Amino acid sequence: MEIGFVGLGRMGGNMVHRLRRDGDHRVVAYDPNAAARDAVTAFGATAVASLEELAGTLSAPRAVWIMVPSGEITERTIASLLDLLGSDDTIIDGGNSKFTDSIAHGERCKAKGVNFIDAGTSGGIWGLQVGYCLMAGGEKAAIDRLRPIFETLAPPDGFLHVGPVGSGHYVKMVHNGIEYSMLQAYAEGFDILDSCQFDLDLHAIAHLWNQGSVVRSWLLELAERAFDRDPKLSRIRGYVEDSGEGRWTLEQAIDLRVPAPALAMSLFARFDSRRDDSFGNKVIAALRNEFGGHAVKAEEAAAGDGVKAAP
Amino acid sequence: MEIGFVGLGRMGGNMVHRLRRDGDHRVVAYDPNAAARDAVTAFGATAVASLEELAGTLSAPRAVWIMVPSGEITERTIASLLDLLGSDDTIIDGGNSKFTDSIAHGERCKAKGVNFIDAGTSGGIWGLQVGYCLMAGGEKAAIDRLRPIFETLAPPDGFLHVGPVGSGHYVKMVHNGIEYSMLQAYAEGFDILDSCQFDLDLHAIAHLWNQGSVVRSWLLELAERAFDRDPKLSRIRGYVEDSGEGRWTLEQAIDLRVPAPALAMSLFARFDSRRDDSFGNKVIAALRNEFGGHAVKAEEAAAGDGVKAAP
Repeated sequence: MEIGFVGLGRMGGNMVHRLRRDGDHRVVAYDPNAAARDAVTAFGATAVASLEELAGTLSAPRAVWIMVPSGEITERTIASLLDLLGSDDTIIDGGNSKFTDSIAHGERCKAKGVNFIDAGTSGGIWGLQVGYCLMAGGEKAAIDRLRPIFETLAPPDGFLHVGPVGSGHYVKMVHNGIEYSMLQAYAEGFDILDSCQFDLDLHAIAHLWNQGSVVRSWLLELAERAFDRDPKLSRIRGYVEDSGEGRWTLEQAIDLRVPAPALAMSLFARFDSRRDDSFGNKVIAALRNEFGGHAVKAEEAAAGDGVKAAP
Repeated sequence: MEIGFVGLGRMGGNMVHRLRRDGDHRVVAYDPNAAARDAVTAFGATAVASLEELAGTLSAPRAVWIMVPSGEITERTIASLLDLLGSDDTIIDGGNSKFTDSIAHGERCKAKGVNFIDAGTSGGIWGLQVGYCLMAGGEKAAIDRLRPIFETLAPPDGFLHVGPVGSGHYVKMVHNGIEYSMLQAYAEGFDILDSCQFDLDLHAIAHLWNQGSVVRSWLLELAERAFDRDPKLSRIRGYVEDSGEGRWTLEQAIDLRVPAPALAMSLFARFDSRRDDSFGNKVIAALRNEFGGHAVKAEEAAAGDGVKAAP
């Protein structure tokens, strides 16, 4: 079938590639970056230079998959598309939008007769090869019409209509929350193995654990690859970003009064990974000094050695 | 080759089955329970009624695999075997002994000229079918001699000599520590999904996530099975035991000064799962009442309704 595609970055570009390679689909693709547009023409996609041209090129009922960063850019893209699309057309948001935003997007689309599908998409850069795991929220008729697209993008059984608008991104959000804690689980285990009294081969152990152990997983297969390239990870800094889903899952845990301590710790560990020092630790050091006379380490700049200037 | 086997429970019985079914091994098996002994004769193992008979039946150099509960019973079994075995014989502890105990067992064995191998064993009741993931600590010559046994028990690539005596159980301990946090990761995620505003099919989502998502794993495959049998887990109480490895991994984190917050939270969540109420929560309720006049709920027995007697 035919689909419009907006956002041809690392995820979107590969998805267009997969749609062209594995299915009989016409893809009309747009990205503000000309090089990204050129790249997908190599897979047989039709590149267009604007959203207007995209809307004009597609035949009704039109379907446009957007794969752009959540927040501001998704907002603007949906607003622009709503000026160009009309009754019975469909917007699919495959990005990591917050589910409450997606519910709002669904209402705005509905007011114009446009269908909205929030399609949580997992698989990262491996999706091209393995297929993308897709969790879709929306109305059944709109989702059923696009089934050929979903089924080309996903591996067998890797697509599910999970519920109404918002539920697709909700399930994807919780998926990512679980991912935070799983990453932290492996992180702590390998950190202990790396620090312990034995001289262990972490690559060999990751590979071993993937053969029949209880902790085998796809993430552990990726750990094997990482340790193979760099056994002590000496070329990587332990600085970890977060992109929203962990925070939103924790907010949900709070709203629903569901204890989620491992998630909270995993998110806070990421915050901690990004700080060289913390005011909280200064407070503890200061109070131990106040009540017990415990020695404090002086801030380097304050100590006058000039190695590290105070900000 | 020939091996003695002590402990024919859920793990040991299946391991004897696998050794007989998939390898050309003579297995001489002992368990204090006569029914467990009878069960393994069905697989062609030779059952004996005592450790003395076991030692007398095996030919030198003898190898005895013990698969019994860690602690007291392992201690007694190793002590008894050391009275019966001699120079160049080997004891393999496949149970979940604490690595410090295994180092001590290794020293006691060495003093008598007996080899000691600590073989951390993962795979649970699925090992019979999939193979057991084996992490072995000990001297190379002793381990190499038993390679045919390890290779029959393990799936391809599922056996590794990880280091000296103690390291096998160390790596298995950390494996189990990771397992605690992974279980907690999925637990929190599904708890949020179960409580949220959408009516979701958890079995379908677990199955979906196993198709190409980032959180796919063997544990998630088991979650699929569990939700398939009992979609809301209504037949299971949320009461979770712990058997030592989580505590020991956390002790190691403390000894090595490695922050392991997700592991700590996962272990404490298990403790919490086993209590109906807690003194800690009583303290918080009492203090909120003291400083802010916040209402407290009365203990049922104290409130005079007699439903729940005070201990």
